[in-house]
Amino acid sequence: MHRTQIRVAEGALDANETIARANREDFDRHGVRVVNLMSAPGAGKTSLLERVLGELDGVRPGVLEGDVQGSIDADRLAALHIPVTQLNTGAGFGGECHLDANMVRSALPEVALEEIDLLVIENVGNLVCPAEFRVGEDARIMVCSVAEGEDKPLKYPLMFRACELVLVNKTDLLEHLEFDLEKLLANIESVNPDARVLTMSARSGDGVEAFREWLTAV
Amino acid sequence: MHRTQIRVAEGALDANETIARANREDFDRHGVRVVNLMSAPGAGKTSLLERVLGELDGVRPGVLEGDVQGSIDADRLAALHIPVTQLNTGAGFGGECHLDANMVRSALPEVALEEIDLLVIENVGNLVCPAEFRVGEDARIMVCSVAEGEDKPLKYPLMFRACELVLVNKTDLLEHLEFDLEKLLANIESVNPDARVLTMSARSGDGVEAFREWLTAV
Repeated sequence: MHRTQIRVAEGALDANETIARANREDFDRHGVRVVNLMSAPGAGKTSLLERVLGELDGVRPGVLEGDVQGSIDADRLAALHIPVTQLNTGAGFGGECHLDANMVRSALPEVALEEIDLLVIENVGNLVCPAEFRVGEDARIMVCSVAEGEDKPLKYPLMFRACELVLVNKTDLLEHLEFDLEKLLANIESVNPDARVLTMSARSGDGVEAFREWLTAV
Repeated sequence: MHRTQIRVAEGALDANETIARANREDFDRHGVRVVNLMSAPGAGKTSLLERVLGELDGVRPGVLEGDVQGSIDADRLAALHIPVTQLNTGAGFGGECHLDANMVRSALPEVALEEIDLLVIENVGNLVCPAEFRVGEDARIMVCSVAEGEDKPLKYPLMFRACELVLVNKTDLLEHLEFDLEKLLANIESVNPDARVLTMSARSGDGVEAFREWLTAV
């Protein structure tokens, strides 16, 4: 009898990483680039997407919208006439506070990968757990709002470290806040010196074009 | 032989509830009232505590400060010259996104229960998981900021439902936002008609006295 011994080696993929790779292969097969968009609740992820996804030069976008429950954001984005798929973590996943690779995989049959070039996965609003679960994305983006305080990179460093791009949103409010933008930027630099940082306001549109350009080149 | 059969009955306490009751007994033994303070990151929990804990009429407060890592908020509150204990979920608890009864229990030997009448447990900033774990508190409070949008009660209903008191903070920003306060209040009412709701601004001090009165009577 021929015996094969499989050792569980150090560095073996955990289940999430295994499934993330399977997602990645599906994305690659369709030539779809994927970004994982994260933030605290209310930082303005959906408003930013409303601003940019309607006018991406030569890129057909789609959205996978993650929420504990409801479809408020998906309904807003559907008005852009782009493919939007709702994924609720409260239905079948126990009300999870983040998306993981398996949840994304469960939604892929409903995502029109053949009709899009860029898939934005809008994660559940949370600055802790989403950072721990790769889902097969090309890049990770987080949005922080100037209404949240300068200390967030120091209190939630894993999230800031996990991202290639940090969007500092709601800059239209700066004149009404006691907020030190330079201090926030220094705090981001201290935890993730490699991150690209863009300041912007979804409300006024300031700085949004740079995000649009970043998305078309990801 | 006498046989005793123990059935695991429906409704048997889970481990968290069992430990929460043990915490509760410790609090009662010392005559300490306890509130569990929750919010999204950056809603203003610490700023509100800075506003109220220094001037509670006849009540000696203390704080158990929950964070993934660091002690930024605890350092701020220590300036009030009240007992503050830091509890980090990143050290020994795997970077958890919430406090549970066992984490609080692990911190109790460091909390000066005999020197205080009111313990405020400032939870990790997160609108999902903290709502699922009672820690032995008398009441649960959540803070939401008008900078976060009117839809939050509909997107995170479990958190809004779990609380006896909802503080709507940062009302000083209302004049600079396209924010419908009546819509937020209606959304809170729709998910938790029994919640007491107070609007306030930690920055201007408007409405803060009502929170102070609530805390002295809890």
